[in-house]
Amino acid sequence: MRIYFTFEPRPDLKDPLVAEFPEVDFVFENALSIEELQKADVLVTYGEDLDNDNIQYAKKLKWIFVASAGVEKMPAQAIIDRGIVVSNVRGIHKTPMAESILAHILAIKRALPWMYEQQKKSEWSKKAKQSELRDSTALILGPGAIGSEVGRLLQAFGVKTIGCNRTGKEAVYMDDMVSFDGLLDTLPKADIVISVLPKTIETTHLLKEAHFKAMKNNAIFMNFGRGNLVDENVLIQAIENGEIGHTVLDVFEEEPLAANHPLWTLPNVIVSPHVSSHSARYVERSLEIFKPSLEKWMKGERDLENVMDLSRGY
Amino acid sequence: MRIYFTFEPRPDLKDPLVAEFPEVDFVFENALSIEELQKADVLVTYGEDLDNDNIQYAKKLKWIFVASAGVEKMPAQAIIDRGIVVSNVRGIHKTPMAESILAHILAIKRALPWMYEQQKKSEWSKKAKQSELRDSTALILGPGAIGSEVGRLLQAFGVKTIGCNRTGKEAVYMDDMVSFDGLLDTLPKADIVISVLPKTIETTHLLKEAHFKAMKNNAIFMNFGRGNLVDENVLIQAIENGEIGHTVLDVFEEEPLAANHPLWTLPNVIVSPHVSSHSARYVERSLEIFKPSLEKWMKGERDLENVMDLSRGY
Repeated sequence: MRIYFTFEPRPDLKDPLVAEFPEVDFVFENALSIEELQKADVLVTYGEDLDNDNIQYAKKLKWIFVASAGVEKMPAQAIIDRGIVVSNVRGIHKTPMAESILAHILAIKRALPWMYEQQKKSEWSKKAKQSELRDSTALILGPGAIGSEVGRLLQAFGVKTIGCNRTGKEAVYMDDMVSFDGLLDTLPKADIVISVLPKTIETTHLLKEAHFKAMKNNAIFMNFGRGNLVDENVLIQAIENGEIGHTVLDVFEEEPLAANHPLWTLPNVIVSPHVSSHSARYVERSLEIFKPSLEKWMKGERDLENVMDLSRGY
Repeated sequence: MRIYFTFEPRPDLKDPLVAEFPEVDFVFENALSIEELQKADVLVTYGEDLDNDNIQYAKKLKWIFVASAGVEKMPAQAIIDRGIVVSNVRGIHKTPMAESILAHILAIKRALPWMYEQQKKSEWSKKAKQSELRDSTALILGPGAIGSEVGRLLQAFGVKTIGCNRTGKEAVYMDDMVSFDGLLDTLPKADIVISVLPKTIETTHLLKEAHFKAMKNNAIFMNFGRGNLVDENVLIQAIENGEIGHTVLDVFEEEPLAANHPLWTLPNVIVSPHVSSHSARYVERSLEIFKPSLEKWMKGERDLENVMDLSRGY
């Protein structure tokens, strides 16, 4: 069996993997080549190098392990037609992303941006506009692996968590659940609205003018899912109208965000350059998910962890 | 019975208190007057207005309720000699302080100060020097009400907590405990060193050169207790020598910190102007502690919550 990585892990991670599976031919390259793709039984990729043009050469390919969460750039229909199994590293982002989300919330609540500015002026002032996170209510759009980890941490801070997904079906670390249909009615309760939703047809422009009008004027709105969630013009209008208090964005309709984009300079907006999931331990964790799946695969088992339904996009 | 407040709570907090204890004569003033002090059976104060000069007039005083945590400015010997009971609001700061401490830690770990600077330049860059809080080790000097709340939250983030107090006796939410004597040997294990120690003879200059040399070069050192913990010249030397990675200070040897003080501008130092305990809910919480104690007091019971030992200073 031949496994083709289109990225190369550090030696301290790669060498143990190779040693653990001596019967496998591993190929590591830092880009995708047609030649190697033709020979690969299994492809391990970040998901951005496979397309409708090159997948036709992958005649032997049976399993794609995607070392990322998003698969928007993959040739979904061709993969479905060919019956190729796709699994990903869902959940791998949960620790760095949940830490980033909590960092931003607490920084706002405890007035850290203000404090940093005071320090630049060497100015001792106690006029910090601080508030407490405890006893607030958070609405989490997409209470999956990442959203639930955010919920778990928020609950530790004494926050009430309300999860919101397509069907309203139960999710862990959520005190309450609503479906997308119940979203508008629930928004007025939330002090913090956090989206970690994936990009699907249903999540595209899920939030409209009425949703921002329904939010508390001092609500913190955070998009850490995908930029398709809201038309940025709608969001900018809501910010300019004072319909929300703070906005923290890790994702945008177009990335990188253009240097002249109004979101950079609007008051009470934090631009995070899509780095919330970044972690020095990323590849290590990917391989921790890959190895048990590979063991199963070699035994002929197909119930791998995180098998994706590409027709749904997650 | 006459209860003298040297501050005036908001009407929505004051009125219910007065209504709840109709048999008490309440006096609210926004400063201390000798005349009222002479008549008071109980004094409710922030602890900064009573001194060796005016306490002699407080002939009837039996109980002082201090609506703060520190009693450094109170005439300890005179109070002890007179046998006056002193109780305080220990623990009242735990929520805002723990939230502030977690905010600062997460902001550093997730590179928020860097991100804010990038945003000012409208510069999209993913070169954030981020790390994760999970799996790190925190040493908490003073695992009392506040320190334990910090420990509880850190444990939720997957951090190992080591408490350190005078005797090394067990404290909640600490995975491990050491005494002051064991401090030097424990410091090399800690990624984060947090002090919330009160000001006592034993905590004055508890941390010396050797302690900073023993810390990890990338450790985050946080003083949220009292400025007496370390000679600031020793601390500045340690920072300049690169013996620690980040420093976050909420307390100082002299407050306010002078505008020309080097701590304002040293790299990787965050100056918090002693605001970490601030909360809009402070007086509300003080009265929640005061009311049950007052009920007990009126029944002749003396086992009030948070009775202080002024000879020890806490």
